Amino acid sequence: IIDNIPLNGPTVNVLASENFIHQSMSIIVENAIKKATDVREKVCEWRSPEQLKELLDLELRDGGESESEILQRFKDAIRYSVKTTHPHFFNQLYAGMEPYSMVASFIIEALKPSLYTYEVAPVFTLAEEAVLKKMMELIGWKDGGDGIFNAGGSMSNMYAVNLARYRCCPDIKENGLSAAPRLVMFTSQECHYSISKAAALLGIGTKNVYAIPSDERGKMIPSALEEQILSAKSEGAVPFMVNATAGTTVLGAFDPIDVIADICEKHNLWLHVDACWGGAALVSSKHKHLLKGIHRADSVAWNPHKMLMACLQCSAFMVRDKTSLLQRCHSARASYLFQQDKFYDVSYDTGDKSVQCSRKPDAFKIWLMWKALGSKELEQRVDRALAMARYLAEEIKKREGFRLLMEVAPVIKERMMKKGSMMVGYQPHGEKANFFRMIIISPQVSRQDMDFVLDEINNLGKDL
Amino acid sequence: IIDNIPLNGPTVNVLASENFIHQSMSIIVENAIKKATDVREKVCEWRSPEQLKELLDLELRDGGESESEILQRFKDAIRYSVKTTHPHFFNQLYAGMEPYSMVASFIIEALKPSLYTYEVAPVFTLAEEAVLKKMMELIGWKDGGDGIFNAGGSMSNMYAVNLARYRCCPDIKENGLSAAPRLVMFTSQECHYSISKAAALLGIGTKNVYAIPSDERGKMIPSALEEQILSAKSEGAVPFMVNATAGTTVLGAFDPIDVIADICEKHNLWLHVDACWGGAALVSSKHKHLLKGIHRADSVAWNPHKMLMACLQCSAFMVRDKTSLLQRCHSARASYLFQQDKFYDVSYDTGDKSVQCSRKPDAFKIWLMWKALGSKELEQRVDRALAMARYLAEEIKKREGFRLLMEVAPVIKERMMKKGSMMVGYQPHGEKANFFRMIIISPQVSRQDMDFVLDEINNLGKDL
Repeated sequence: IIDNIPLNGPTVNVLASENFIHQSMSIIVENAIKKATDVREKVCEWRSPEQLKELLDLELRDGGESESEILQRFKDAIRYSVKTTHPHFFNQLYAGMEPYSMVASFIIEALKPSLYTYEVAPVFTLAEEAVLKKMMELIGWKDGGDGIFNAGGSMSNMYAVNLARYRCCPDIKENGLSAAPRLVMFTSQECHYSISKAAALLGIGTKNVYAIPSDERGKMIPSALEEQILSAKSEGAVPFMVNATAGTTVLGAFDPIDVIADICEKHNLWLHVDACWGGAALVSSKHKHLLKGIHRADSVAWNPHKMLMACLQCSAFMVRDKTSLLQRCHSARASYLFQQDKFYDVSYDTGDKSVQCSRKPDAFKIWLMWKALGSKELEQRVDRALAMARYLAEEIKKREGFRLLMEVAPVIKERMMKKGSMMVGYQPHGEKANFFRMIIISPQVSRQDMDFVLDEINNLGKDL
Repeated sequence: IIDNIPLNGPTVNVLASENFIHQSMSIIVENAIKKATDVREKVCEWRSPEQLKELLDLELRDGGESESEILQRFKDAIRYSVKTTHPHFFNQLYAGMEPYSMVASFIIEALKPSLYTYEVAPVFTLAEEAVLKKMMELIGWKDGGDGIFNAGGSMSNMYAVNLARYRCCPDIKENGLSAAPRLVMFTSQECHYSISKAAALLGIGTKNVYAIPSDERGKMIPSALEEQILSAKSEGAVPFMVNATAGTTVLGAFDPIDVIADICEKHNLWLHVDACWGGAALVSSKHKHLLKGIHRADSVAWNPHKMLMACLQCSAFMVRDKTSLLQRCHSARASYLFQQDKFYDVSYDTGDKSVQCSRKPDAFKIWLMWKALGSKELEQRVDRALAMARYLAEEIKKREGFRLLMEVAPVIKERMMKKGSMMVGYQPHGEKANFFRMIIISPQVSRQDMDFVLDEINNLGKDL
């Protein structure tokens, strides 16, 4: 006894929770898996923030609750959550349930590994290596490269900016930017907003992100890129990188990587390809031409949690460099974690490549499902989702009342949420009014669902 | 049929996987939960990278595998993974299994929510709000504040640096640092390495992080802090923030926050408290004095996945400011996601406070367990872990052969890993040779385990 606290024996025994864990898992299977993916059920059961606060009793108190009360909380949490795995969820660049990946993520949650040293996460470290190897092979880096998974595509894009800057001016890591020249980077006006967030966070400044015009389809116009590079140089600024997007967020456009790579070579600029969304096309022999030239990129971001349906998050950042640029750029060499007198090959201690400390082993979620499905099945899924999108586009052309682009999207969205029948995102674009952005990913989706979407938009908006 | 691909009906049906999901869950319960936490089992089954690659067959191929093969892969992955939930895992600043939190994280994995807009994650958005409210109450911010959970304490510390810089020089977000004065920040020599990583990433430069000496116990010496602030100013640099650590990584020391806050007020510097590890003491009326003055901080990082045992990751970043500084500093206002013409209060769309886009609803993992256990039980756990550490310290004093600090730690570590009997980290510190850093968190741990640790180190090293 120390401080009046008895120390003999454990005070919590996991075995005592076994029954509770089994009951919880039954609830998850019934409600969060089977019911959530059932097309006859709602996508969401809409409640306003005020209503939901009343329903959920969120306050944290001194006393605890019984297991049966907690099980009821599970049911409520699932009930009022959006079912992003439902066949009618088209709202984000991810959708659908992939059972193999889901179960892999359960293993991760139960084992609580963190990727920084091999000794704490041996299996997951090697699984990450295997997935990166395969993805780099699909990119076309014949000699491999380097990379890590991290917490989302925005972070991958940030890593790219940091690496590009480090290659251009390695002293900035120590000395900071205050004595450096004005660095500028280039990206299309259609790129993801994380590029601008990265410029802000990294001290480059959002004004030093030059937005290159895109054509009507949403692709960067290469001649405009070269003009702006020359113009930046004439201002005395120092161009250091170009971001090309393979699959833009709103229009799904692919920038012409090969032509952009020519320009980058000519001006000695780092080429990053944000293929978070469009990278999946690399598994398809029919569609990989969309990313022609990606093997010439210095770095690539690609999120298997999007089109490939791995559980969130699953985001790879890869670099063609093989001189430890990633590690040199990010390392801090913490002696409590990255001891150099270890008894195994410390090149497997990947933690100092990251700006995180604890890092989830997200690669395992795509490794396991890739093992189960094989590349061929992944390819068929991608091909089918793209065919489905073509079907929808053709059906829209046939239907009266679509393509009008009147200001009805926010009203139709409100009605679909309150009905819970489906979820599709909307946004304005350039001079175009708010329109619905349909995202098709999952093999749980069928032609019938496409027809449902059109009928439902029609029904929800017919009085407008 | 489009492109020879039939589009009628779903090609993947989750119900067909039900049996597989049940079998997987049984494996998880038996192997990753029950066996993993059984004190009679090994903490790890050590294999070198080369051996493990041979055992696991990691390569990804065109063809898939059968369900039974995949189930065997689950078993292998669990078998060769480190059991961080085992009572003899003292290697990291997290340990132990918390069944409530684990099940909450299973729900998250099954539902695949992402926190950016209320409409996609209503329950999880409100759970985050409730947890932040409670944590800020414990910090002592009577009028509340603002905050978000994010992917680890390193990111929280980065957020602090960015916010401090934004308050000091808001134009840097747009214009970058190249025209800015040399900004400098202050932290103790014992701080976590993420502070230096943040300075590198944000373009401040690691040389502009001034390391303040600590006393023998590891606490920042406030008089030295003030000296260095004055010295930086005399160099023409612009001090903008101080990082105080509540619970340092190696020695577990608490910087004297109250005195540091006086200095920050005097010099108008942002005060960030990195309480990732030590924040848990705030739930204990006996130990919260360790963080006296934390209510005066401008920002706080606190990871409930450490001492409070929530599943990884669970990391809160909180700001005292109530003028939307967090959002203004990080926002990019993506029109496809943060439409302002929505039908509900868009202040619940928290995504633009983050530098991530997709963000996991990690707060739910601590919310659910806090509901189940209540603050009182959390307090008892923290008190018991600290009492256990005192017991161990007293026992070490009694034992011959301990405190010698000869260069034996790497050898003992190698032997414990290969035996799999326990995991404790080691590192050098200042002029001290490699020593073992014991971390005590979980209520699954008992006095018997403390005695075991001492006996085991003794046994493993007795021939040295």
